[in-house]
Amino acid sequence: MAYPGYGGGYGGYSGQMPGMQMQMGQPMPGTVPNMPHGGYSGYSAYSGGYSASDPMWTYFTAIAGQDGEVDAEELQRCLTQSGISGTYSPFSLETCRIMISMLDRDFTGKMGFNEFKELWAVLNAWKQNFMMIDQDRSGTVELHELSQVIAAMGYRLSPQTLTAIVKRYSKNGRIFFDDYVACCVKLRALTDFFRRRDSMQQGFVNFVYDDFLQGTMAI
Amino acid sequence: MAYPGYGGGYGGYSGQMPGMQMQMGQPMPGTVPNMPHGGYSGYSAYSGGYSASDPMWTYFTAIAGQDGEVDAEELQRCLTQSGISGTYSPFSLETCRIMISMLDRDFTGKMGFNEFKELWAVLNAWKQNFMMIDQDRSGTVELHELSQVIAAMGYRLSPQTLTAIVKRYSKNGRIFFDDYVACCVKLRALTDFFRRRDSMQQGFVNFVYDDFLQGTMAI
Repeated sequence: MAYPGYGGGYGGYSGQMPGMQMQMGQPMPGTVPNMPHGGYSGYSAYSGGYSASDPMWTYFTAIAGQDGEVDAEELQRCLTQSGISGTYSPFSLETCRIMISMLDRDFTGKMGFNEFKELWAVLNAWKQNFMMIDQDRSGTVELHELSQVIAAMGYRLSPQTLTAIVKRYSKNGRIFFDDYVACCVKLRALTDFFRRRDSMQQGFVNFVYDDFLQGTMAI
Repeated sequence: MAYPGYGGGYGGYSGQMPGMQMQMGQPMPGTVPNMPHGGYSGYSAYSGGYSASDPMWTYFTAIAGQDGEVDAEELQRCLTQSGISGTYSPFSLETCRIMISMLDRDFTGKMGFNEFKELWAVLNAWKQNFMMIDQDRSGTVELHELSQVIAAMGYRLSPQTLTAIVKRYSKNGRIFFDDYVACCVKLRALTDFFRRRDSMQQGFVNFVYDDFLQGTMAI
């Protein structure tokens, strides 16, 4: 059956990010599904898909050090050095924190190289979307344009929810790139959290207070 | 019956903030309860409790202008000028945004003077708590100290949820005042949102996806 409330694309462009789609609502191999408090504790053990010749690996290892994981401050430096923002302002620490939370299924507050690559792929897709709207390269887009992008991503939200969301991420009536990314990260992470709890995929979830806070406070 | 998961103080110190307690989970006079999408639309019409001789009124009106409401950028200037942070760094724009969201029940993205006064009272209480822990006035507290403060506020959370929360708001293993306030604001706002949906006060809520996102994306 169709998944009510989510939309077919489930928050991503399936054509652009086939790898992301797979990881959005389904546990990775080796993980422990349906573990409300522990989350996907086996996730960081997943490996593969990179090599020493990968240019991102150089950026990443220089920042991560021997433990092979980066925290929010390190991620901010890493993303700034990698130049993924292009001509846009680099990401704020707050946005980097929610990027970590989006993928930090074992609640360590850190991110491994595979999570970093996953993040990189989705950031690139979001940047392309932003640049498509921001044709004069002013660095900002209008509120209704963000609404359209969110709808185009496959999120089926009420007009009131869309309005509340875009207002929250605006500054002087415009949306900046950093806030746009923060909005996309939160939408994806909260949807992912919700869907993991929605075992019947019906579009509603019965939350216990503690679990609700665990999933929403960190994002 | 006791309210499971919340704690007697319901996220505040009832002795210090009797006015806050009343407003936390109960609609104000003249509001429209049980309106999932519209929220408490009559809230901003509530008036009383201030006068032109109120020193905060001067700060507030200078910033708010004729419409009598402030957005996140204006609130940041207002709080900075008022000196409520004391010797601590003033609040970041992100923290000001979630402060607005905490009280913005009609989703305008703005705050009136009564909401500002409500915020002022709770900020002062949180600052007193922070200063009690930060006895050497370093401007930061330790992670386990924030856990203790959250528990002392009456939030009954699992150790795992507490750990996830304090990690999220830490920077280099310490909690700064601005992040501590952001954490307190989010805890209060998310608890308030959850409790408004929990009509039977049982500690669990059946969320529809759209409503879940409307309540959590803005905070």
